[in-house]
Amino acid sequence: MAREQTAKRREGNEIEFGRIVAFSDGVFAIAITLLVLSLHVPEHLHGESLGEALWDQRQDLLAYAVSFAVIGRFWVIHHRLFGDVVGFDGRLLALNILYLAWIVLIPFSSEVLGDHGGDTDAVVLYAVNLAVVAVLGWLMAYDAHRSGLAKIEVHEEREFRLRAFFVAIVFLASIPLAFVAAGLAPLLWLMLFLDPVSRRLGRT
Amino acid sequence: MAREQTAKRREGNEIEFGRIVAFSDGVFAIAITLLVLSLHVPEHLHGESLGEALWDQRQDLLAYAVSFAVIGRFWVIHHRLFGDVVGFDGRLLALNILYLAWIVLIPFSSEVLGDHGGDTDAVVLYAVNLAVVAVLGWLMAYDAHRSGLAKIEVHEEREFRLRAFFVAIVFLASIPLAFVAAGLAPLLWLMLFLDPVSRRLGRT
Amino acid sequence: MAREQTAKRREGNEIEFGRIVAFSDGVFAIAITLLVLSLHVPEHLHGESLGEALWDQRQDLLAYAVSFAVIGRFWVIHHRLFGDVVGFDGRLLALNILYLAWIVLIPFSSEVLGDHGGDTDAVVLYAVNLAVVAVLGWLMAYDAHRSGLAKIEVHEEREFRLRAFFVAIVFLASIPLAFVAAGLAPLLWLMLFLDPVSRRLGRT
Amino acid sequence: MAREQTAKRREGNEIEFGRIVAFSDGVFAIAITLLVLSLHVPEHLHGESLGEALWDQRQDLLAYAVSFAVIGRFWVIHHRLFGDVVGFDGRLLALNILYLAWIVLIPFSSEVLGDHGGDTDAVVLYAVNLAVVAVLGWLMAYDAHRSGLAKIEVHEEREFRLRAFFVAIVFLASIPLAFVAAGLAPLLWLMLFLDPVSRRLGRT
Repeated sequence: MAREQTAKRREGNEIEFGRIVAFSDGVFAIAITLLVLSLHVPEHLHGESLGEALWDQRQDLLAYAVSFAVIGRFWVIHHRLFGDVVGFDGRLLALNILYLAWIVLIPFSSEVLGDHGGDTDAVVLYAVNLAVVAVLGWLMAYDAHRSGLAKIEVHEEREFRLRAFFVAIVFLASIPLAFVAAGLAPLLWLMLFLDPVSRRLGRT
Repeated sequence: MAREQTAKRREGNEIEFGRIVAFSDGVFAIAITLLVLSLHVPEHLHGESLGEALWDQRQDLLAYAVSFAVIGRFWVIHHRLFGDVVGFDGRLLALNILYLAWIVLIPFSSEVLGDHGGDTDAVVLYAVNLAVVAVLGWLMAYDAHRSGLAKIEVHEEREFRLRAFFVAIVFLASIPLAFVAAGLAPLLWLMLFLDPVSRRLGRT
Repeated sequence: MAREQTAKRREGNEIEFGRIVAFSDGVFAIAITLLVLSLHVPEHLHGESLGEALWDQRQDLLAYAVSFAVIGRFWVIHHRLFGDVVGFDGRLLALNILYLAWIVLIPFSSEVLGDHGGDTDAVVLYAVNLAVVAVLGWLMAYDAHRSGLAKIEVHEEREFRLRAFFVAIVFLASIPLAFVAAGLAPLLWLMLFLDPVSRRLGRT
Repeated sequence: MAREQTAKRREGNEIEFGRIVAFSDGVFAIAITLLVLSLHVPEHLHGESLGEALWDQRQDLLAYAVSFAVIGRFWVIHHRLFGDVVGFDGRLLALNILYLAWIVLIPFSSEVLGDHGGDTDAVVLYAVNLAVVAVLGWLMAYDAHRSGLAKIEVHEEREFRLRAFFVAIVFLASIPLAFVAAGLAPLLWLMLFLDPVSRRLGRT
């Protein structure tokens, strides 16, 4: 309540509000584009053909594709959340920056995964990074909902929560699996495409 | 029909819609700017002058110029398509992200081409990348047109399709040529400047 | 006065004004995202595990976290300042570009700090960089306030000044400490979280 | 005339027009921020202190400062030009992309200059790059003015032209000097600060 009253309203401050989403969009756009830097241009070919050298990078290309989809998906969620935001204050800004700090880490975790795909530690790093993003995203939605800064309806907030927890659980569950069979853990991530939340709530 | 009704209208959601183009513009702008990273600053000059070392990179500079023109051209097309978009839904967002994923690959394919210009595999990689972008761009326009999310006129949709297919065909046709004479394949791409579609339809 | 009359008013020039903040936001967003490039993906593991190699980078991760928070914080301040700006001229643009030049240096200073954390020179470089940003930020606010280009109230300008000087003093005070015990200097920076200005003025 | 009639008007197409400046701003913002990548973090200190290793990069820092000022200045000019633009067509878009291609080259030329400051070829590369940017910038203003796409007044167009030619002449004049004394050529660039155009026209 108190917070809802001290916060700046979105209407009447559209330009200031616009900067928050513009800054976030910029960070998302740069993070997703930096993924391409994890693909290494083969410089010296040691007896192999260029095609073989590129084929050796299929794991990097896979990590690129997965991470592009993941960051793109989180951007869509961020986009939907801020579509419902009606006011902002220092705390929402701080949470948003904390959230973005973990988004920006993804190109790093992704490159580690691409270069050391069969390594338990690489899978753990990636899984932890993505689980934290999912939880922070929910926390931001929850906090904005609670404080009245986002006009999210109750069932929508529940959907956000279920979805975030589903993503977090899939990634966290892959960690113990990574210790047994690191190569199989990413297969578990395919479960993310099942999206049981939408099915349960009957939407997309 | 169904999709047209469940989609969010652009009017009344200008800010949300604006974020989609802002995000896409950001990705295009970063991808086109990252092209400069494919130019290598000569660090150690082994008996040659700096000018000679830079001259050795003429192929990289050529790849830079071609790719800058290509990404710039695709941005103009994207710009025109989204000028006609009147609504958006999850599917358009997903197609757009898939499209951007192939745009972001261009700096990588371009650097491979610049460093290994005479190599068949480099030409194939570049040609496939660009052909996929052209086809995905058409697919997005076609899907938006069909579902009523873009108010593209019939002859305009036809122009999009012809143009996309022309670009795709030129790049695909250069693949067999690359196996015979890799150095000549890029010359085929000059055909893109002929732009028979405009001539046939009588516009620019 | 004279300057207030020759400056372009923000109202009636919203698009031009919007470009100034959009450009600044872009630079902030890129600078904050480039921080991730300071994290090195371990390429060859010399007998150590990937986890150990990543753990060796804990100082880089710490520098990443600190610099992300710092740039994010300066962005919030910039955001608040330009929310009060009502006009702009060449001098405000020039000051803003000078300010951004020092913001863009942060990823460099931060990477030096992460790689050479215990080194006096690294601490000095980082402290000088941040102190200059704080002072330039205040200078811009002061100049905009004086010339009537920003409708900042007197107590608000005082808050800007106190806060900027507090940040500058904390960083400058860490320089002599760095010569005695370089490892301890960053601990002094934790004082920034105390934020005595807010407390004194009774706000957040 | 013909062109003025076939071009899209800015009013009524504000969002499409906005994308052109947003894309350009993005490219400017990224190019100016990538300048920081030309500063090398010393990895191994061979007997010298970190401070000495950083001091060895004073030429890179100078190139960073000069290029930041130069790109920032060109951004201000671009900003002013597009403030007067009232319509756009394919040709203006193409000229703008060509212009941006030379802006994006600046971080490369700048890094070459920073690493090989005393080398004639480095000075020539930088001077040619900047002279081309100045001439292309004028060409874009001239073309927009002629075709009625920009409501630039006659004396303003003359100011653009004089300024662009002055910048181009200073850079081109430094080329023969670079063959005699490469180290002195950049000093000639200081003439840019004299800005005789403003003085002659009596403005800033």
